[in-house]
Amino acid sequence: MSMFPEAVIIREVGPRDGLQNESKILPTEDKVAWIDLLSGAGLSYIEVSSFVNPRWIPPLADASEVFRNIRRVNEITYAALVPNSSGLERALAADVDEVVLFLSASESHNRKNLNRSIVESLHDCREVSHHALAAGLPVRAYISTTFGCPYEGRVPVDISLSIAETLLEAGIYEISFADTIGVANPLQVSQFLDRALDVVGQDSMALHFHDTRGTGLANVLTGLEYGVFKFDSAVGGLGGCPYAPGAAGNIATEDLLYMLHGMDIHTGINYDRLMDSAVFIRDQYNERHLPSHALQAT
Amino acid sequence: MSMFPEAVIIREVGPRDGLQNESKILPTEDKVAWIDLLSGAGLSYIEVSSFVNPRWIPPLADASEVFRNIRRVNEITYAALVPNSSGLERALAADVDEVVLFLSASESHNRKNLNRSIVESLHDCREVSHHALAAGLPVRAYISTTFGCPYEGRVPVDISLSIAETLLEAGIYEISFADTIGVANPLQVSQFLDRALDVVGQDSMALHFHDTRGTGLANVLTGLEYGVFKFDSAVGGLGGCPYAPGAAGNIATEDLLYMLHGMDIHTGINYDRLMDSAVFIRDQYNERHLPSHALQAT
Repeated sequence: MSMFPEAVIIREVGPRDGLQNESKILPTEDKVAWIDLLSGAGLSYIEVSSFVNPRWIPPLADASEVFRNIRRVNEITYAALVPNSSGLERALAADVDEVVLFLSASESHNRKNLNRSIVESLHDCREVSHHALAAGLPVRAYISTTFGCPYEGRVPVDISLSIAETLLEAGIYEISFADTIGVANPLQVSQFLDRALDVVGQDSMALHFHDTRGTGLANVLTGLEYGVFKFDSAVGGLGGCPYAPGAAGNIATEDLLYMLHGMDIHTGINYDRLMDSAVFIRDQYNERHLPSHALQAT
Repeated sequence: MSMFPEAVIIREVGPRDGLQNESKILPTEDKVAWIDLLSGAGLSYIEVSSFVNPRWIPPLADASEVFRNIRRVNEITYAALVPNSSGLERALAADVDEVVLFLSASESHNRKNLNRSIVESLHDCREVSHHALAAGLPVRAYISTTFGCPYEGRVPVDISLSIAETLLEAGIYEISFADTIGVANPLQVSQFLDRALDVVGQDSMALHFHDTRGTGLANVLTGLEYGVFKFDSAVGGLGGCPYAPGAAGNIATEDLLYMLHGMDIHTGINYDRLMDSAVFIRDQYNERHLPSHALQAT
């Protein structure tokens, strides 16, 4: 019926979005071992860590050390979240391949998460991206709460798109529109894309879904039907947001792969090796039930 | 983009498909209390139990007693699974509103599940439906393993459709094509419907997905895009199949509702009251992690 993209690019966000919300802090050597497993699975993109102030997100305080110790594969982009100029300095020192910025589409979530207004955050994003681009690094950005805010509910599409336009003008090459709290449904995604693709073409568009209410892959399917070919996911279905109550994990990379490969959509990722990395991380969190479906089906 | 049905009919299969695979046997009075809660939530159809030989499925051995004790609402269809003529006798004695037959699209699963060949099962189905129709009861049927068999893998669409034709000719009004082990993906569902809707029109078509690999609601979405408007689901995401290793639960009714209502598709079901019934059944299985997403998000 619909035409789907022939290939999809997966942005693996488990080591950052996945681990940042876990109460158990993973030892650095386990993170490094896990990321090396992810590299071996054929992923082309891994969001390795975050250079936010370690006091904010203690589970990712070892970002520099993780970057120093992972075994880098040439073809893989090892990216890092960066909140501001001092974060960028640390990121540059760690020799990251790509800088990822973030802000929210809703004022209250942005204030909780970044302690400033959206306009102030946009100013910061422009400044940081300017320096990152000057240093030769590509810059990507998240717009959190695009599909709903834990404090404000539905967020007007106009706001996300206006933020996106500003970011693209600043030279940011890709915007990941995030359903931070996992409330989106396929009709909403469809209505969003009806408008968003006029502002942000497929090449600059990524979608970031959480599977909080079981609609994660249905939302991806809607994206595919619109020709979107870049999706964020986290091995194990890890993740959430410390400032978004009730947010469950990202869609699990292995679930996404299962669906895409079953639909004859190419990803370049080896499913079995990716599952090995999922089993590895499950074993680190053996007291917590990870939301990945594929992990439970094996 | 796509046109979705304005309204969807949900076949609640939790009390039968959900409970039959649980190792903990729910006391009859708890089943009755649960089904009464389901009736109060606005469901129009509840598959209450199964009149298979109690030795096969001990958790449902009390089918007659459950039917005797539930508080029936006039507009609701209280259906029961029936494997053969002696099961039908018990079902008629229990005054069921509708008879549900079942067989598999794959020979080996049918033998494991029913101890006979598909052709023998088709003969039984015709015989039982003949008697049920003569007694004035509508008859529905499952074709299990339509989208995959734990022993044979992919099952040719032709086989399911040939079985469906025979069942429709026997006066069965609705066929539920079941992804018993939860392997289907949206492309497969789309390819199935491309052919199946010529044989089984929307009015006689139901889809029955399990969420074993996270694709449950994505598969539903594909069905909706084809105008399918009848779906099976189980509150709590309970369920599975005792003869299908690795089969996880049905799609959770509350997850399905969340998606449908979010898409402005009418179901007649009260989400909050349905969630109450989900919380009730979760409390009965408090040591087992139910797969429902919505239950974890609340």
